[in-house]
Amino acid sequence: MGRMSTQDSPVRLHAADAPGQPDVTPALEDLYRGFEQELLVPLWTEIGDLMPAHPRSRAVPHLWRWANLRGLAERAGALVPVGRGGERRAIALANPGLGGRPFATPTLWAAIQYLMPGEDAPEHRHTQHAFRFVVEGEGVWTVVNGDAVPMRRGDFLPQAGWNWHAHHNATDRPMAWIDGLDIPFQYVTESQFFEPGRDAIGDAERITPERSRSERLWAHPGLRPLSVGELGPGTPLLSYKWEFTDRALADQLSLEAEGFGGTVEPGHAAVRYTDPATGGDVLPTIRVETHRVVRGAETTPVRETGSSVYQVFDGSGTVTVGARSWSVSRGDLFVVPSWEPFSARSEAGSTDSGSGALDLFRFSDAPVFEALRLNRTHVEGGAR
Amino acid sequence: MGRMSTQDSPVRLHAADAPGQPDVTPALEDLYRGFEQELLVPLWTEIGDLMPAHPRSRAVPHLWRWANLRGLAERAGALVPVGRGGERRAIALANPGLGGRPFATPTLWAAIQYLMPGEDAPEHRHTQHAFRFVVEGEGVWTVVNGDAVPMRRGDFLPQAGWNWHAHHNATDRPMAWIDGLDIPFQYVTESQFFEPGRDAIGDAERITPERSRSERLWAHPGLRPLSVGELGPGTPLLSYKWEFTDRALADQLSLEAEGFGGTVEPGHAAVRYTDPATGGDVLPTIRVETHRVVRGAETTPVRETGSSVYQVFDGSGTVTVGARSWSVSRGDLFVVPSWEPFSARSEAGSTDSGSGALDLFRFSDAPVFEALRLNRTHVEGGAR
Amino acid sequence: MGRMSTQDSPVRLHAADAPGQPDVTPALEDLYRGFEQELLVPLWTEIGDLMPAHPRSRAVPHLWRWANLRGLAERAGALVPVGRGGERRAIALANPGLGGRPFATPTLWAAIQYLMPGEDAPEHRHTQHAFRFVVEGEGVWTVVNGDAVPMRRGDFLPQAGWNWHAHHNATDRPMAWIDGLDIPFQYVTESQFFEPGRDAIGDAERITPERSRSERLWAHPGLRPLSVGELGPGTPLLSYKWEFTDRALADQLSLEAEGFGGTVEPGHAAVRYTDPATGGDVLPTIRVETHRVVRGAETTPVRETGSSVYQVFDGSGTVTVGARSWSVSRGDLFVVPSWEPFSARSEAGSTDSGSGALDLFRFSDAPVFEALRLNRTHVEGGAR
Amino acid sequence: MGRMSTQDSPVRLHAADAPGQPDVTPALEDLYRGFEQELLVPLWTEIGDLMPAHPRSRAVPHLWRWANLRGLAERAGALVPVGRGGERRAIALANPGLGGRPFATPTLWAAIQYLMPGEDAPEHRHTQHAFRFVVEGEGVWTVVNGDAVPMRRGDFLPQAGWNWHAHHNATDRPMAWIDGLDIPFQYVTESQFFEPGRDAIGDAERITPERSRSERLWAHPGLRPLSVGELGPGTPLLSYKWEFTDRALADQLSLEAEGFGGTVEPGHAAVRYTDPATGGDVLPTIRVETHRVVRGAETTPVRETGSSVYQVFDGSGTVTVGARSWSVSRGDLFVVPSWEPFSARSEAGSTDSGSGALDLFRFSDAPVFEALRLNRTHVEGGAR
Repeated sequence: MGRMSTQDSPVRLHAADAPGQPDVTPALEDLYRGFEQELLVPLWTEIGDLMPAHPRSRAVPHLWRWANLRGLAERAGALVPVGRGGERRAIALANPGLGGRPFATPTLWAAIQYLMPGEDAPEHRHTQHAFRFVVEGEGVWTVVNGDAVPMRRGDFLPQAGWNWHAHHNATDRPMAWIDGLDIPFQYVTESQFFEPGRDAIGDAERITPERSRSERLWAHPGLRPLSVGELGPGTPLLSYKWEFTDRALADQLSLEAEGFGGTVEPGHAAVRYTDPATGGDVLPTIRVETHRVVRGAETTPVRETGSSVYQVFDGSGTVTVGARSWSVSRGDLFVVPSWEPFSARSEAGSTDSGSGALDLFRFSDAPVFEALRLNRTHVEGGAR
Repeated sequence: MGRMSTQDSPVRLHAADAPGQPDVTPALEDLYRGFEQELLVPLWTEIGDLMPAHPRSRAVPHLWRWANLRGLAERAGALVPVGRGGERRAIALANPGLGGRPFATPTLWAAIQYLMPGEDAPEHRHTQHAFRFVVEGEGVWTVVNGDAVPMRRGDFLPQAGWNWHAHHNATDRPMAWIDGLDIPFQYVTESQFFEPGRDAIGDAERITPERSRSERLWAHPGLRPLSVGELGPGTPLLSYKWEFTDRALADQLSLEAEGFGGTVEPGHAAVRYTDPATGGDVLPTIRVETHRVVRGAETTPVRETGSSVYQVFDGSGTVTVGARSWSVSRGDLFVVPSWEPFSARSEAGSTDSGSGALDLFRFSDAPVFEALRLNRTHVEGGAR
Repeated sequence: MGRMSTQDSPVRLHAADAPGQPDVTPALEDLYRGFEQELLVPLWTEIGDLMPAHPRSRAVPHLWRWANLRGLAERAGALVPVGRGGERRAIALANPGLGGRPFATPTLWAAIQYLMPGEDAPEHRHTQHAFRFVVEGEGVWTVVNGDAVPMRRGDFLPQAGWNWHAHHNATDRPMAWIDGLDIPFQYVTESQFFEPGRDAIGDAERITPERSRSERLWAHPGLRPLSVGELGPGTPLLSYKWEFTDRALADQLSLEAEGFGGTVEPGHAAVRYTDPATGGDVLPTIRVETHRVVRGAETTPVRETGSSVYQVFDGSGTVTVGARSWSVSRGDLFVVPSWEPFSARSEAGSTDSGSGALDLFRFSDAPVFEALRLNRTHVEGGAR
Repeated sequence: MGRMSTQDSPVRLHAADAPGQPDVTPALEDLYRGFEQELLVPLWTEIGDLMPAHPRSRAVPHLWRWANLRGLAERAGALVPVGRGGERRAIALANPGLGGRPFATPTLWAAIQYLMPGEDAPEHRHTQHAFRFVVEGEGVWTVVNGDAVPMRRGDFLPQAGWNWHAHHNATDRPMAWIDGLDIPFQYVTESQFFEPGRDAIGDAERITPERSRSERLWAHPGLRPLSVGELGPGTPLLSYKWEFTDRALADQLSLEAEGFGGTVEPGHAAVRYTDPATGGDVLPTIRVETHRVVRGAETTPVRETGSSVYQVFDGSGTVTVGARSWSVSRGDLFVVPSWEPFSARSEAGSTDSGSGALDLFRFSDAPVFEALRLNRTHVEGGAR
């Protein structure tokens, strides 16, 4: 409290001769020194930054190539042990507009995690909401509250905050996948709690079943187990297997082909992962979707408040984020900052498998915006 | 996209010889350079900062004296015109832990606004949710969508985002009040839109009624006008007059005196301002309350996720925020960062009026935490 | 189970030679006897009754004159004691279309209750949701969970199910009021529980305060006491005093006069009583409103699914329900069955007080319809 | 309005010399005649019936044998045409306690519907919520808004109110199934609308696909199509195929066998059919579940407010409803009135298939009770 010397105060004000600003006079300079000493900042010098006509993100569109990520993760596999303290061999995307912090966007964390044969990542829990998504490989099980959940290409594993979890690689090959969390959002809002668990999971949890217990209870379409009572925030279903996602997307496209709609727009199918107990988003702060764009199709540019991270799951094409445009293929990750228009075109690429569709995995902070009534969407051309 | 030179990358990694960290070797250094070039940051160097055992706020407890704020605002009244561009003669609290930015807490803006006799502040609208609270004086009307709302000591005027609003001082004396907004939260989430309105309000809006139209429709206890259909986010009631707040607090204390409870704890009455159409918070992102602590009483220390700003409305006493403690009196403002314990004691002060109760006006970001299921509270002693 | 003799079965089927019906043959007659024995009824003989093009209520529009009700209640005061077993000296409206049962409409109960000087009605609780409304007199207190709530002309006292309650007349004059409950609805759905309480309320509950404790906690516009935690279904505010209702209606009409709307339609003001903790209806199954129609005005005919009971609180005029029309004045009660169009005209009457407005108190089963998505409204002329 | 002659009034009051009743005197008799003329009924003569200590249903436990129903439906197939006017060849259960009306319980309709080879049931829509459940056979498609939904043993087809629907039998064999609706509830609340559609469905709707379009969009576990916007009340998924139900029940029992719970109680698995867009009940007024009781197991008796209809889908055993108990096998239907305790035991029967489990299909009015906060449950022994 109280007056600070100008040197000590972190506030620095510059009287500027500019439209909308007061005349620069010695009295004004003196006033500004008074503001600095009292830890005050006038609105009139900040309004352009704080209250823009529309969101102008500090984050920038950026692309990370999967091959590079994967290569560095392999090197980390050789040099960096996994254990208590560091907790995970996870390497996060740092948006170049966000000052070198490990924030893919102002609210979202995205990292590649890498586990060597036979390794375990120790058990812990935290309020940050998290998920795993597997773009390649298999062989790791995530153990959530003692329930071993297998991870294979295309599987999406959400895991709401404050659930105990560990990973174990039961095979003789390393495996990489991506982690998505709301770490930056909880860092800003300062709501984080963390607790370490057991250093090693039990032998009974080293079983490697085809389906987790959560799937056996919850992965039946439109069916709720009566044995389950009150649930916490976030989905009780711990894995959304690729076979279901793939079939749902294929069904939408065949409905479209038969003339019945079903797709978001021609050649563009999409599903949202939902909590079967509520029909809402899988996590309170993170929305997750998979989009399929058929060969030759292009999505309509859309602007939304809030930010997204995409990973190319399959196929190849060109994605456009505001003024940037990239050719992308399997595993590549990129970010779409708030209110930047985004579109994707599916095109033949050198590494393609057969179907030619561009499959994009997406996660975003949309539930935050919807819960707080801050969501806005603008579709180019005004329709969809 | 793509590899950056180490110089250009904002990422800077320092291999450190510390528990939980990998051995510092040339290979590790080389790996870290690779991370920097690829805009990557490992979790294991950041986890302590990002995933603490409990919230450790970057914001610090701090107090601003009303006399100092008021004095600087008066000087600004003489030097800084009010008009389009700067928009408002508002001077914001800058928490010393937040780098000199005009953020009282990581999510909340608090400012003193000052309007000279006969002045108008121009009309605009923005997505940021806002309110006014009047600690002294009268004579200004806030015109919201053409409805002139009077401002007098103790009145609380919420105003949800995207409503047109202007201020006009109809008297021959200057007036000061405080503005609270979610500017920092919307700055971080990048959800802001802003639009200027008319440069001057119409003559018909210069009327200065005792009660706004919104009060005539909505300020009747438990009664909803049938003429009002679908409502947007935020309360339709634009003023919560002091007479009602004061009476509600007095009623709670008399119920307690008669042996029927009614107070939060002995000697501590409190009301929350609510949206009469939903019973919920007045604004989607901001909770507002007034607390009354009777002379001699002290509140139990409470920790909560999320941050608050308090203004002393009346009385005097001592407030304790974490390790800091201050004697406070009318108009003083202070902040309570996330998870810092807060308590208040009501004590005789030199400037007191009769009752001796310490009245504290409070606003916080609690609705954000509740909507996203991130709220936690800890009451010292475990009960209340 | 099993075959019944035709004599024993309550099912009686009549083969009829009519459009949409099967040919009347001995085989059909034999089939119908089989249905009767097996306790079966075909849809094709019932569909016109069960699935009409729009609701055709079994209830009929009907009016009860206050003078007659009041006179009979007085006679009951002399002949019928109040005590355990009978519980209340309440006399219910029996819609002539509903077979002589004490049902004002298929879902709503409306009764006049009468209490002699010094009498108590014994304490009990039941799952049926209830309220009192006072068209004349004063002197009775309803004691709800030990909280004594005064009753005066114009006061509305809701009381959600399963709260203990008793009445006591603290004066030397009898008093009459109306009770509204969802007895028929709970009778049909078979959800009722009932429990007798103490035979006499305690002396401490015989106090006769101006305001109940519930009002002191909750009757402050837009203010919620922080001391109150989780609430059950139904409003915590036990009295909505006439002074607030009257002022809210007058405010709407003055806003209309100033050109700002505020009324439902010209000359027609209306408020809904709401739960201050939720903004929703005061009771889970009953909606309550007061409408004011200024002298000379007439409301637009409206049809709604669900039924209503009205009582004339003040003024006089003509009300039209479907094909029926009545001149009404203070205290008269009438019912509006489902989908019957209703309108009211305010006219001079012989017993009027000054203002000339027709004030109508209304309760309905609308919350049931809205909760189950069965609500439909049709406003004549298609607008409002 | 006005006084009725005693002969015309449907009200009949009998002064009785009984506890809690007023003394029978000529004055009382005279008062009762006055009540009758004014269409009034006192509470004190009715309270025992209207406000019982707990629900005492007018409906009684009753069982209908499938063989008998099926036999009568076949005879109706020969005698009763299907067409506009009668609309459906549906034959409803008439609970013997409900006066011969086609009401299985006070709120629920249950009927066997029968369609001959090549027949169509004409298109219509109504506000009553409906479903089909198939205990045997296949070959009929229900066409909902032009979407042809196949019906096979074990399939559950919900269909929310106000959707166009027709049936067509595409095979050369008759087929029977059961219809469940909320006809009695909407009859009592008087909320019904009905509209006939086309007399014949189009050729394009005579296609007989394996999966309906609704299944292709919605029957993917935890996945929501992004192409679907705002939805009305009730599930968008028009068929819940038996293979999913069967697998979900089997999974619960295998989890139990492995020691992980998953079942409601030992040997008792159960699923609720839910709306994938909300996680809630499939219909606003009807809850639907399938229960599996393994050979030798018996369920704990449970009382609930509200009523249920059960159909034995497979297996055999003994069911107990209040004081009644029956041996049951495939297709048998029975009702559980409000607050009657229900339990089921799985036992070997003469007609069993292999597994020996007793599979019970159940529908109830529970959503009505939950929406209106009238639900209560009592599990014998107080735990589960």
